[in-house]
Amino acid sequence: MPKRVDHQQRRRQIADALWRLVSGHGFNAVSLRQVATEAGVSMGLVQHYFESREQMLLFALDDVGERAREQIEARLAAQSEASPRATARAMLTQVLPLDEQRRRDGHALFAFLAEGGREGIVGQRMRTDMARLRNSVAAQVRAAGTSPDPERAAVLLLATTDGLTAHVLGGYLEPDDALAALDQQLNHTFGQQG
Amino acid sequence: MPKRVDHQQRRRQIADALWRLVSGHGFNAVSLRQVATEAGVSMGLVQHYFESREQMLLFALDDVGERAREQIEARLAAQSEASPRATARAMLTQVLPLDEQRRRDGHALFAFLAEGGREGIVGQRMRTDMARLRNSVAAQVRAAGTSPDPERAAVLLLATTDGLTAHVLGGYLEPDDALAALDQQLNHTFGQQG
Repeated sequence: MPKRVDHQQRRRQIADALWRLVSGHGFNAVSLRQVATEAGVSMGLVQHYFESREQMLLFALDDVGERAREQIEARLAAQSEASPRATARAMLTQVLPLDEQRRRDGHALFAFLAEGGREGIVGQRMRTDMARLRNSVAAQVRAAGTSPDPERAAVLLLATTDGLTAHVLGGYLEPDDALAALDQQLNHTFGQQG
Repeated sequence: MPKRVDHQQRRRQIADALWRLVSGHGFNAVSLRQVATEAGVSMGLVQHYFESREQMLLFALDDVGERAREQIEARLAAQSEASPRATARAMLTQVLPLDEQRRRDGHALFAFLAEGGREGIVGQRMRTDMARLRNSVAAQVRAAGTSPDPERAAVLLLATTDGLTAHVLGGYLEPDDALAALDQQLNHTFGQQG
């Protein structure tokens, strides 16, 4: 179905333009019109794909989530180890800004958070995504059997990862040091060799 | 010197208006003119106190920092315990959005971060402030003697605290759960009873 693929590519092209705008100018800068200009397409085309600004934001969030899942799976497939710790580490390092793509994603997500990403249906979606990610990490902690409270350990691991991300983006921390700190946190949770 | 006190109050009044704007509309919304309107004073008065937008932002950052130090000292004075752990906890809980004031400060700081607070002299000041806070926390970890690497432990404690703050502000976490998670992290660093 080449037509369908084309639609999906179009949507992604528009979503990419959206993320560039959010990352560079913040969440409030994002109108359908500005996204159309940034994507180099007509306002009508954007409206053809997205009924509203909200629908566009939801698609963009889903798109980042999907791309993240693909990259986590690729990372897991590439590594010999499939221990609970290694699996959790693959999920968490996907969030750390260790390359330009993840840097941009992190930046955009903080922009969402800073400027009202908490509100409405977009905020709801972000909370659902966070709950899902926490459950996935908690499942790994539970499988390892190294923590008396896997849910709290997962909350802590994800907050730590987002905090390290903020500190790298703010220029307070080098990416390598953030990764070393995350490994330290994984040691706390899964044990030194876990 | 009543005149001097009045100047300081004026500056604080203007800085408060600045934070309200950053918290509500993001960093990019902040021009000297908008701050004057929000503070209910003339543009000339703002310019009398601050030579530039940058000078105003620096004052506002210093003002938040100073208020935070006062509150940490008040908290330490009020508590019976003065262990390294209790001291570190007082510093870190000052960052968590456990009341409206700290919520607003946290929100504004993430807005800075999301939209370019890393740049120029303001970014430099934020990094200096972060380095100072890390050194203070690391000194407490060193005094406790419970960590093989007090600097890394401090990096981790501060990143965790900022991540928990982001998760409360995003509505992913209740303030009480954030505090419980921070206590868990303090346990990792200082030992269960440390």
